Amino acid sequence: MSETNLSPSNRVPVVERLLTANEEVAADNRVQFHQRQIKVGNIMASPGAGKTTLLLATIAAMPGRKIGVIEGDVASQVDAEMIATTGTPVVQINTGGACHLDAPMIRNAAKALPLEELELILVENVGNLICPVSFDLGQDFNVGLLSVPEGHDKPYKYPGIFEAVDLVVVTKADLLPYLDFEIDTFRTLVHGLNPDVPIFVVSAKTGEGMEDWVAWLETRLGI
Amino acid sequence: MSETNLSPSNRVPVVERLLTANEEVAADNRVQFHQRQIKVGNIMASPGAGKTTLLLATIAAMPGRKIGVIEGDVASQVDAEMIATTGTPVVQINTGGACHLDAPMIRNAAKALPLEELELILVENVGNLICPVSFDLGQDFNVGLLSVPEGHDKPYKYPGIFEAVDLVVVTKADLLPYLDFEIDTFRTLVHGLNPDVPIFVVSAKTGEGMEDWVAWLETRLGI
Repeated sequence: MSETNLSPSNRVPVVERLLTANEEVAADNRVQFHQRQIKVGNIMASPGAGKTTLLLATIAAMPGRKIGVIEGDVASQVDAEMIATTGTPVVQINTGGACHLDAPMIRNAAKALPLEELELILVENVGNLICPVSFDLGQDFNVGLLSVPEGHDKPYKYPGIFEAVDLVVVTKADLLPYLDFEIDTFRTLVHGLNPDVPIFVVSAKTGEGMEDWVAWLETRLGI
Repeated sequence: MSETNLSPSNRVPVVERLLTANEEVAADNRVQFHQRQIKVGNIMASPGAGKTTLLLATIAAMPGRKIGVIEGDVASQVDAEMIATTGTPVVQINTGGACHLDAPMIRNAAKALPLEELELILVENVGNLICPVSFDLGQDFNVGLLSVPEGHDKPYKYPGIFEAVDLVVVTKADLLPYLDFEIDTFRTLVHGLNPDVPIFVVSAKTGEGMEDWVAWLETRLGI
């Protein structure tokens, strides 16, 4: 946003400068990752939507790929500990209260990863359907997960995330028999916000749909 | 927070003033509700945890009580429309992007409710385990919902909400047979953060546990 768009009030310019600072660091992150030919994906979803479980299944399904993981949580390192059991390089970010990751956090976390050994970094953002959307991290692509138990009406209520993503993954598909999740309604709502976005239906538990997700990731790696 | 605690930096005083403004309005909301002998509950949970479904079951289970509802969402009025089908007075707040309700929003929403007819207002906060905790609305009690599909590890990752609530309701208990939700582990984690908080296990779908929740609400109404 150009200087001439700044509001004359006291508060708005502060917000503008904060956003700009994040965007500058994000742009630099992107340059740093591209120079090393690393692709970065930002994975966003509600708490408990199955982000870490999908990451674990993805690591298992792509043994030939050099993957690193950055875990974002308000507190704890339980997710990073689970990823570490696979031998995958992983860094935990604790935001201490913030409801999203930002570009400086990613810059610092990346310093703790063996970047020269990696070709793909998957970032698990803080469990939240709202805040993470507004902060560029320097990623190449955004993935939005929605778990079947959350319900097919969520695009009505959280349109921003469905507009921002390059892929939607419906997780916990193994629970479809027990819940009133209308997948066709969900597709219609999502495509009303983001007409061409692919939507995969996946169960990391049973393996259903994992081949679509892995093939999509391979395409993002340029193969 | 007193003036002497203000940081000399440019940014912190702005945040302090914003918080104080919210707290002043919250205190006034509390006075206004108490003068009318209305109790107010703030219900917080992730997206899709079953807040609206629990509200609908609660309204059905308490036909003798004069209940009003304030619905908070980033966008849409689908939740308020569902509540309205029961004949319950309801107001929808759309935050337009903010990840929580605040006290001025509640003050404005309350103007659209028939306060003289109500004894209990249930506020459904924006679907989020992080942001709503920090903003007093003028409520009498806080309820935190966690749905079985979200997993029993959430107190590790979102400690703030479990510390802040007066009651924890585990929702979607009908899904327990299909998921690895360790209820005893969850109880231990929650009580590590908030030693005496009651934890009810409820299914609004089957009615399991609803009597505990309704009895708890009746106690809050002072009966």
